[in-house]
Amino acid sequence: MKVFVLGGTGFIGSHIVARLRVQGHEVSVGSRGNSGNRFHGVAYHEVDLASGRGLLDALIGVDLVIHCASATVPASSAVNPESDIESNLVGTLKLLEIMREINVKKMVYLSSGGTVYGEPADNPVPESHPLNPISSYGVVKVAVEHYLEIASREWGLEKIIFRPSNPYGEGQVNKAGQGLIAAVISCALHNKPVSIFGDGNTVRDYIYVGDLALLISKSVTFEKTGTFNAGSGLGVSVNEIVNKVEDISGRPLKKEFSEKRRFDVEKVVLDSRKSMSGFSWSPETELSLGIRKQFVWMEDVCFGRTVGPCL
Amino acid sequence: MKVFVLGGTGFIGSHIVARLRVQGHEVSVGSRGNSGNRFHGVAYHEVDLASGRGLLDALIGVDLVIHCASATVPASSAVNPESDIESNLVGTLKLLEIMREINVKKMVYLSSGGTVYGEPADNPVPESHPLNPISSYGVVKVAVEHYLEIASREWGLEKIIFRPSNPYGEGQVNKAGQGLIAAVISCALHNKPVSIFGDGNTVRDYIYVGDLALLISKSVTFEKTGTFNAGSGLGVSVNEIVNKVEDISGRPLKKEFSEKRRFDVEKVVLDSRKSMSGFSWSPETELSLGIRKQFVWMEDVCFGRTVGPCL
Repeated sequence: MKVFVLGGTGFIGSHIVARLRVQGHEVSVGSRGNSGNRFHGVAYHEVDLASGRGLLDALIGVDLVIHCASATVPASSAVNPESDIESNLVGTLKLLEIMREINVKKMVYLSSGGTVYGEPADNPVPESHPLNPISSYGVVKVAVEHYLEIASREWGLEKIIFRPSNPYGEGQVNKAGQGLIAAVISCALHNKPVSIFGDGNTVRDYIYVGDLALLISKSVTFEKTGTFNAGSGLGVSVNEIVNKVEDISGRPLKKEFSEKRRFDVEKVVLDSRKSMSGFSWSPETELSLGIRKQFVWMEDVCFGRTVGPCL
Repeated sequence: MKVFVLGGTGFIGSHIVARLRVQGHEVSVGSRGNSGNRFHGVAYHEVDLASGRGLLDALIGVDLVIHCASATVPASSAVNPESDIESNLVGTLKLLEIMREINVKKMVYLSSGGTVYGEPADNPVPESHPLNPISSYGVVKVAVEHYLEIASREWGLEKIIFRPSNPYGEGQVNKAGQGLIAAVISCALHNKPVSIFGDGNTVRDYIYVGDLALLISKSVTFEKTGTFNAGSGLGVSVNEIVNKVEDISGRPLKKEFSEKRRFDVEKVVLDSRKSMSGFSWSPETELSLGIRKQFVWMEDVCFGRTVGPCL
């Protein structure tokens, strides 16, 4: 199958590309610049989602698009929601127009299990829970999901929407506001205090990126459409993550608490049974093992033992 | 109270302005051009929601904004969703920024009870029903609702969101794709066949515009926030509307059936008990009476007996 991964040089995207190649798919990638994680044997196209530039050429002959590109993270979208809308929402509409034009009828979209539900009434949250996002990032993800539904009604787009919880693992960069585990490991490696928003009792569901990539790569061969949570089903607090990194690194970490961010929900844990039964998948990597893998990778990058971005 | 009605020269907006004045409020209006329904003693400001032009000046000293401006209707938003997003969604974010800047902390927003729920699981639909819009118009309304929720969390915006069903009554213009009752009356007045999408069994909830305007004008004096359906609670089919107009006009109408539009839901009737108890209000005008009022008004305009737009 010819699969185009939009955002395929990013953290999650590059893991998906790796998995798809193992499964023997012909993979091409669309990304904004020349940076990111690249593999031999994969065609890389420079595209711009917001303007649609480069997309048409990149999509010719493709069977399926995996859309895991995002120009924002929750923190940046809070500062500039208009740019979030322009790049991610209007951009995805442009992508859909082009797909319709050249008859590419299948899409896997990476939404966000951590933001679309808002503060859930109950945990773990099933896919049927109302969508009440409290961050611009989540609002835009919800709007994209709705436009995909419209496209499926209007011209038969076959869509799989995944709502991942918080992916972590090798390749995750310690960028401001994204990737708690990467941020904590970075603090351990550089002997810096950990900055925590709120009291550290915020509970999240963490999914190892390799498990998520496996699920997504499996989904492309299933004749199935719909919306699927993709998490571990386990709730873990920020304080517990810090403790785990302390254990793994063998170094105590100083915590600096600051005010809770308004766009963060208190607790969200995903009910991912629909993904598990639908795609014969399970989130196999135990959290401590996944963090250990990420720690070793970040340590290697940090001390120049492997190639990677500055962490 | 100083109330600014954005979109106050339009069909619904002008009824709201009239009601607010009866209640003794100081009313100003923002609208795109110089047309529309205007009253003596009301300050009219030319503003552009999409660019934010004129909004800051118009909002100085205002206590509360009633936002009933929309650059689109469901049919036009289906053709050009990007423009829908630019004008209505990004425009509303600009409005919110300005309100925050000059500390105008209260807003009444007119969402859409007919589109935000999509195809409801059950009728009548309460406000807690999940939001699954199947039209771009509905997607944008939902996204605006979410951004209002974010504003209320971030800087304390006090918001009332109304989700009206299908407003009708004097002043409704027979524009393509909006206002079934106006369209059917127009056919009766001009002896034209009625064009019906689908088989005419699509069921809607119709709310007389005077009742809706009363509800909205009442809400500004309540210390209440939240989301409220605003409908009659009665489901009426397209065929029944045609029959009623036939009865009132005394003229049989020829029906021309064409393909159902993909963005129209089959049936949606609103549960408006929360509005009724919350604002001591009820949708009093019986449908036949409301249609009769609209018929008489349209007939008067049509035959030059009153001032109004070309119908």
